[in-house]
Amino acid sequence: MGKMWSGRFSENASTLLDEFNASLNFDKKLYQYDILGSMAHAKMLGCQGILTDEEVNSIINGLEKVRSEIESGDFEFNISDEDIHMAIEKRLTELIGDAGKKLHTARSRNDQVALDFRLYVQDHNKTIRKLILNLIETLISVADKNKETLLPGMTHLQHAQPINFGYHMMAYASMLKRDYERFESSYKRNNLSPIGCAALAGTPHPIDRNATAKELGFDAPTLNCLDTVSDRDFALEMLFNIATMMMHISRLSEELIIWSSSEFGFITLSDAYSTGSSIMPQKKNPDVPELLRGKTGRTFGNLISLLTVMKGLPLAYNKDMQEDKEGTFDSVETAEISLTILNEVIKTMQVNKDKMEKACMVGHLSATDLADYLVEKCSIPFREAHFITGRAVALAEQKKCDLSELSAQDLQSIDERINDDVTDYLSIRYSMNARNSQGGTATSKTAEQIEYLKSWIQSIK
Amino acid sequence: MGKMWSGRFSENASTLLDEFNASLNFDKKLYQYDILGSMAHAKMLGCQGILTDEEVNSIINGLEKVRSEIESGDFEFNISDEDIHMAIEKRLTELIGDAGKKLHTARSRNDQVALDFRLYVQDHNKTIRKLILNLIETLISVADKNKETLLPGMTHLQHAQPINFGYHMMAYASMLKRDYERFESSYKRNNLSPIGCAALAGTPHPIDRNATAKELGFDAPTLNCLDTVSDRDFALEMLFNIATMMMHISRLSEELIIWSSSEFGFITLSDAYSTGSSIMPQKKNPDVPELLRGKTGRTFGNLISLLTVMKGLPLAYNKDMQEDKEGTFDSVETAEISLTILNEVIKTMQVNKDKMEKACMVGHLSATDLADYLVEKCSIPFREAHFITGRAVALAEQKKCDLSELSAQDLQSIDERINDDVTDYLSIRYSMNARNSQGGTATSKTAEQIEYLKSWIQSIK
Amino acid sequence: MGKMWSGRFSENASTLLDEFNASLNFDKKLYQYDILGSMAHAKMLGCQGILTDEEVNSIINGLEKVRSEIESGDFEFNISDEDIHMAIEKRLTELIGDAGKKLHTARSRNDQVALDFRLYVQDHNKTIRKLILNLIETLISVADKNKETLLPGMTHLQHAQPINFGYHMMAYASMLKRDYERFESSYKRNNLSPIGCAALAGTPHPIDRNATAKELGFDAPTLNCLDTVSDRDFALEMLFNIATMMMHISRLSEELIIWSSSEFGFITLSDAYSTGSSIMPQKKNPDVPELLRGKTGRTFGNLISLLTVMKGLPLAYNKDMQEDKEGTFDSVETAEISLTILNEVIKTMQVNKDKMEKACMVGHLSATDLADYLVEKCSIPFREAHFITGRAVALAEQKKCDLSELSAQDLQSIDERINDDVTDYLSIRYSMNARNSQGGTATSKTAEQIEYLKSWIQSIK
Amino acid sequence: MGKMWSGRFSENASTLLDEFNASLNFDKKLYQYDILGSMAHAKMLGCQGILTDEEVNSIINGLEKVRSEIESGDFEFNISDEDIHMAIEKRLTELIGDAGKKLHTARSRNDQVALDFRLYVQDHNKTIRKLILNLIETLISVADKNKETLLPGMTHLQHAQPINFGYHMMAYASMLKRDYERFESSYKRNNLSPIGCAALAGTPHPIDRNATAKELGFDAPTLNCLDTVSDRDFALEMLFNIATMMMHISRLSEELIIWSSSEFGFITLSDAYSTGSSIMPQKKNPDVPELLRGKTGRTFGNLISLLTVMKGLPLAYNKDMQEDKEGTFDSVETAEISLTILNEVIKTMQVNKDKMEKACMVGHLSATDLADYLVEKCSIPFREAHFITGRAVALAEQKKCDLSELSAQDLQSIDERINDDVTDYLSIRYSMNARNSQGGTATSKTAEQIEYLKSWIQSIK
Repeated sequence: MGKMWSGRFSENASTLLDEFNASLNFDKKLYQYDILGSMAHAKMLGCQGILTDEEVNSIINGLEKVRSEIESGDFEFNISDEDIHMAIEKRLTELIGDAGKKLHTARSRNDQVALDFRLYVQDHNKTIRKLILNLIETLISVADKNKETLLPGMTHLQHAQPINFGYHMMAYASMLKRDYERFESSYKRNNLSPIGCAALAGTPHPIDRNATAKELGFDAPTLNCLDTVSDRDFALEMLFNIATMMMHISRLSEELIIWSSSEFGFITLSDAYSTGSSIMPQKKNPDVPELLRGKTGRTFGNLISLLTVMKGLPLAYNKDMQEDKEGTFDSVETAEISLTILNEVIKTMQVNKDKMEKACMVGHLSATDLADYLVEKCSIPFREAHFITGRAVALAEQKKCDLSELSAQDLQSIDERINDDVTDYLSIRYSMNARNSQGGTATSKTAEQIEYLKSWIQSIK
Repeated sequence: MGKMWSGRFSENASTLLDEFNASLNFDKKLYQYDILGSMAHAKMLGCQGILTDEEVNSIINGLEKVRSEIESGDFEFNISDEDIHMAIEKRLTELIGDAGKKLHTARSRNDQVALDFRLYVQDHNKTIRKLILNLIETLISVADKNKETLLPGMTHLQHAQPINFGYHMMAYASMLKRDYERFESSYKRNNLSPIGCAALAGTPHPIDRNATAKELGFDAPTLNCLDTVSDRDFALEMLFNIATMMMHISRLSEELIIWSSSEFGFITLSDAYSTGSSIMPQKKNPDVPELLRGKTGRTFGNLISLLTVMKGLPLAYNKDMQEDKEGTFDSVETAEISLTILNEVIKTMQVNKDKMEKACMVGHLSATDLADYLVEKCSIPFREAHFITGRAVALAEQKKCDLSELSAQDLQSIDERINDDVTDYLSIRYSMNARNSQGGTATSKTAEQIEYLKSWIQSIK
Repeated sequence: MGKMWSGRFSENASTLLDEFNASLNFDKKLYQYDILGSMAHAKMLGCQGILTDEEVNSIINGLEKVRSEIESGDFEFNISDEDIHMAIEKRLTELIGDAGKKLHTARSRNDQVALDFRLYVQDHNKTIRKLILNLIETLISVADKNKETLLPGMTHLQHAQPINFGYHMMAYASMLKRDYERFESSYKRNNLSPIGCAALAGTPHPIDRNATAKELGFDAPTLNCLDTVSDRDFALEMLFNIATMMMHISRLSEELIIWSSSEFGFITLSDAYSTGSSIMPQKKNPDVPELLRGKTGRTFGNLISLLTVMKGLPLAYNKDMQEDKEGTFDSVETAEISLTILNEVIKTMQVNKDKMEKACMVGHLSATDLADYLVEKCSIPFREAHFITGRAVALAEQKKCDLSELSAQDLQSIDERINDDVTDYLSIRYSMNARNSQGGTATSKTAEQIEYLKSWIQSIK
Repeated sequence: MGKMWSGRFSENASTLLDEFNASLNFDKKLYQYDILGSMAHAKMLGCQGILTDEEVNSIINGLEKVRSEIESGDFEFNISDEDIHMAIEKRLTELIGDAGKKLHTARSRNDQVALDFRLYVQDHNKTIRKLILNLIETLISVADKNKETLLPGMTHLQHAQPINFGYHMMAYASMLKRDYERFESSYKRNNLSPIGCAALAGTPHPIDRNATAKELGFDAPTLNCLDTVSDRDFALEMLFNIATMMMHISRLSEELIIWSSSEFGFITLSDAYSTGSSIMPQKKNPDVPELLRGKTGRTFGNLISLLTVMKGLPLAYNKDMQEDKEGTFDSVETAEISLTILNEVIKTMQVNKDKMEKACMVGHLSATDLADYLVEKCSIPFREAHFITGRAVALAEQKKCDLSELSAQDLQSIDERINDDVTDYLSIRYSMNARNSQGGTATSKTAEQIEYLKSWIQSIK
């Protein structure tokens, strides 16, 4: 059998064209969605009296045979079939005869590819959300164990205020909650069925789009067929949601890498998720976080690629749109493996509490607390309090100690209005726990955040 | 008064640094949000007993004075104030004395900028949604007038099947509905208050974040302060939503440009939204659609810029994040003017129905109808029907007419099973109206889509 | 044999890590460059007395064996070997014993991968340049046959001034000449050898980097080893050069698509490079130009991906950099097949001269000529000439003819200063040939451009 | 005076259109290039006898007047003039009468904007190259002072091998050399004159494009006018060269930030190029490197923006192309201020040699040297040497010292084949100086690199 559209053509399509034009090499990933879509279409055609029950049964059985051939590796993919839709339809017709051809009634490759690709995106949306929840649970678990572990909170990679390591982990859990919500929102917004839109204008056949939508798990059919066959917003949202999530992951990865340096030493990655060097036997490289950080790049690129493809395309389907899949597949696979492996990395990393707490003695982290103390307990105006704090820091530097290690006398030598209880307020743990406003770092508040996210996860499951 | 943090520094910051570092030149756009945020913060500090009523009143009055100075142009912006927050606070202190400094209690520039920028994004989210609805209403109105206007529906820029022009407009209305929903979803997801997060860890002051959240129209405070001061997801969503919407606009623009060519001539743009050439007096250029298409580029770029900025940043605030605003402002302003002007362009364009209908006589648009007719009315198998259709097209080409212009005899000469009523099925209008499945192009179905979107708009307003 | 660096590690690297971390699945494309590099390295080690002649011969023979195993398909790629360098080295050691391990003396995976990847990029740079020249020659050949074929030159997709189709083709030939020059310039700038840089700091072994550079066709060794193992500028240049070239190709593709529409009809693509529709037997879709236009997207994305990967990476090698290859391979393969197939498309397309020339009678293309005539021959001031031209256009519109079809009397009725010879100046061909300034469209000038590019190609070959 | 092309138009362009369409707000930056171009054009028209000497003089004087009005701030920019070309021409005509209008003979806005923009790009190309050389000289100067300063060379942010700090600086100098060469190559490739191309097809006037090219410093006129008015490759190259250079700068910035952390402490930035915190008086933030790293984002975005704008544009000029300038201006200004301020930052930073050298005692940096020693001096096979090295590292870890601090006896307890001289080979400075292959880190080799770059700079100046 030649190409299905080749009747009118006087020359054979060149081999080069086959290679350039065919999508089969990558869109075969869609096989299961294509089969599900075809089954739903066949059943609906049966209910509507367009196909006989016998034809429907023959098609369903044939498609199940095709699926098992593909999954067992017996299916022969032939690039001259161009795409997975043709490949499956051709094989179906070989298996069951002319009923196979009738399956194409009231549909077109345009709505078929729109359906298959959307099913893929929706399905993986669910997988990714599940993986996000797993990672959040791991972060919560690490947070729970470390809500009293002191850590120098940083801005500009400079020590700023003492926080606890659990609180730091909860910041990432919060980001991932937003990621989850974004995926969920995209899922709902795009959970509409393209099938039955045909080439661009609908079909004269008496089809029932509500039936196919319901069969395939969609909330409803799409509104306008011309839009539907031209629409790749659902894929763009997937690409953006992944790019943003990978940006978050790149931030955590950057921190894991910096924390793994011998200078910081805040964490030790498990040997199972590190690698060594062929020439430097003592090295332990944080390859996984580095690769996670690097893989952010491809997800940004895939987003820009599809935006570029879609820019300026007239309605409806244009062949440019065949370029929608490879980048989406790549981002989806990147997201899934990244979430999976990061989960393991976090689960198995060793938190070096002593290094973190020791680092808190560098940088005079309770300087803000001293300023606050001066204002509140000694009624010293804000600006003056800042000035006194500056002098206290200078004194500590001169004494080569941390501000929290100065004595009350030391501080009273700078300003005699300072009381003896000042040192209580300068301890790093006091300072961390003092920040007990809503969303703050205090152990009690970190615990609240943990409880909140646990309930949220519970409410989803 | 020197820089607020300059106490410890032995050298003056260089002028070059001022120029490089300061954000005042662009973040002054945030002045009204900064003032609103400060008012809410002051009121809350009053309620919590951190400020006296007198101080609160003095701050509120002072801020109102600052606002009117800015809006009347009397405010002196000085780049050495670095940013809008400093500029306003400094002027406030000049106006009301030390109470002005107390306003900074329990907050930091980090949460202040996070608040101001989020208020800006949320506010413009609402504006953009309003403009989208305006444009959808215009598209509906044009669609309503043209649901019987025949147009060659295209794929690959080739005539494919007859549709009506109203249906084509409704495709864009459907895209814009998705855009609306995306903006709405981002609004809801991000409608959380950053204020009170302070530098990164919360504050020891007994603040009430629920009160400030409510005062400023947020649904609740954010969950984790460390995340909050580091989070620019709300801006990224804005940038993505705009980029995707501009991609849609670029597609409509491409069509307006092609339709305005003398070869197509499907529409004539209003002189008010076209321009001429300095050297070619007869030309009428579709500058507005071209510029709309071109402006898509900057919105893609702005999205990539902020994704790049955020990639790999450790928590919490880093100065890199100052780069978040210019691109966002630019995309927001681009979106708003683009929606406004496109609305006018669509409203005022002339639809050349005769040109569109004439074009429908090119390309044998009812070829699919003939194939369907052969299958359904003459019980000819699908594949054979395709073959016969191919021969009929060839005959029309040979006779230099459209397929719809062949007589029943002509067709019967190809296959005698064809009945005399065949010509009814080949008329272009019949063909368009035959596609009456859900979401299809038939005038009745286009009307349904119009009604659906009208009700949807009603439900929002 | 376990991983080469696994001695110190107490846990086995997880399978997940293997899958995530390994580059073998894609970097096996580098096998021939890896083998060439190893051969050059071995020879140099021999000359320097670091390896014995026997060892060198054994390595060379072993590597040749490995190469033939890979090329015959007998080589077993095992993902636990991580990358092509390990896979080849391991097989070499199996084949020749301990001499295989000695090959790694004075080098590291860091400089090895830098070398292999650069050899790949340089090699494909040459291939791409060859393909560009082929395409330019095809464009020149079409231009040469069409330097008298009238075509409406457009700006804003509006008819502007008459040009010839050959001149239009020469515009693309000129773009491709710049592309060629960009690739050539990148080739020369980056033709420096990374080998011998070792991990990041050079090596204590008495190696001869000039010898390996020469052996491998490089101009010289690179300057600083730390930079060299961290440098991917050569790949970024490749990605940018390809993105820009594909942008050019997207422009030509856009024109081929528009020209293939039934409204324009300026060209007819060969059946060999078009496709049909499964449901619309009369359609002929310009799939190849559409796909070329679409593939531009991935080349933009690949560029952004690598820029993102490299952003903010500290020196020297970081695992993020493993992400450099897939996008580069993809862009290179896209460029090569795109140039090849576009060449065929241009070679085989049919130029519909009659349609082009007929289109020249729409849009009053000689309006500028009339204005010029009025200024030069009738000494009418520029601004007044523009006004008169406007009236003449209006008259033609009223008479439903083209400006070039007005009679001298018609024009004299507008302004009596106009002479009888005016009609000579208004013919479309006259107008085209009148633009005979350097680089202009006149047939004679188009011929000059053709000659110039022919000589340029000659000078390269 | 109304718009120059408004004669035929029946409605006034709306105000909204003015705001949307006009480029004057940003393209006024081109004023000096517009004036230079007009002067060259006028002179050429004079030489060719198209203008009289008197007209030429009048134009030149008028243009000089306009330039001084603009530079003194007396020039009134009016958005209804649309762009800088119109604004200047209109003012010129006000000043000198009808001769002003004659200036537009044989040119169009299309070639005028192509010229002005190219002159801008070429001019700033020279400025940027000068600034790059300044920065390289500063890096060389710091390198020269620190070619004996030990530093742990890192891969994966893990200590790898000892290098010297000068060598590290020279890696960045080498990157910037490539940047310089890329800008230089773009300058040469694009140093061709667009003037005289007119709208798209050349001009019938007897102009001399060689004369204007020479007058304006171009090497020659461009080849094909249609290409020339559609070409923005020169701007894309500028954007790519800047993006790549900023990527390099982001890497150095990342290192400056990490090195400034209290954990690393390798450098101390000058107070003049750091900032403090409003709430934490002891902090010193590396704002400038952070902002440099962040500004990388906008240069990536600007590149993608223009690539997107150009994608799929048919020839010749389309209004989309007006979007070429703002992003280019932004990237150019970003590049210039970034190079300038980074130069100061590097010049004024304090190198904490003691911290760097102390860090070299962490991580067993001479492990590779031990392995090499075992192979070369003790004739132990490579694989076994690696194994012994691993045990030595383990012993050092157990003794809580660095490998270089183990005694010969310690090492002999692991393997008795080890000689007493082993400790000489394990000192960090020995290890650094041992890497004396070409391009290596040894102080002598770093000095060679410094000399090489000094000569290269000399050869340019």
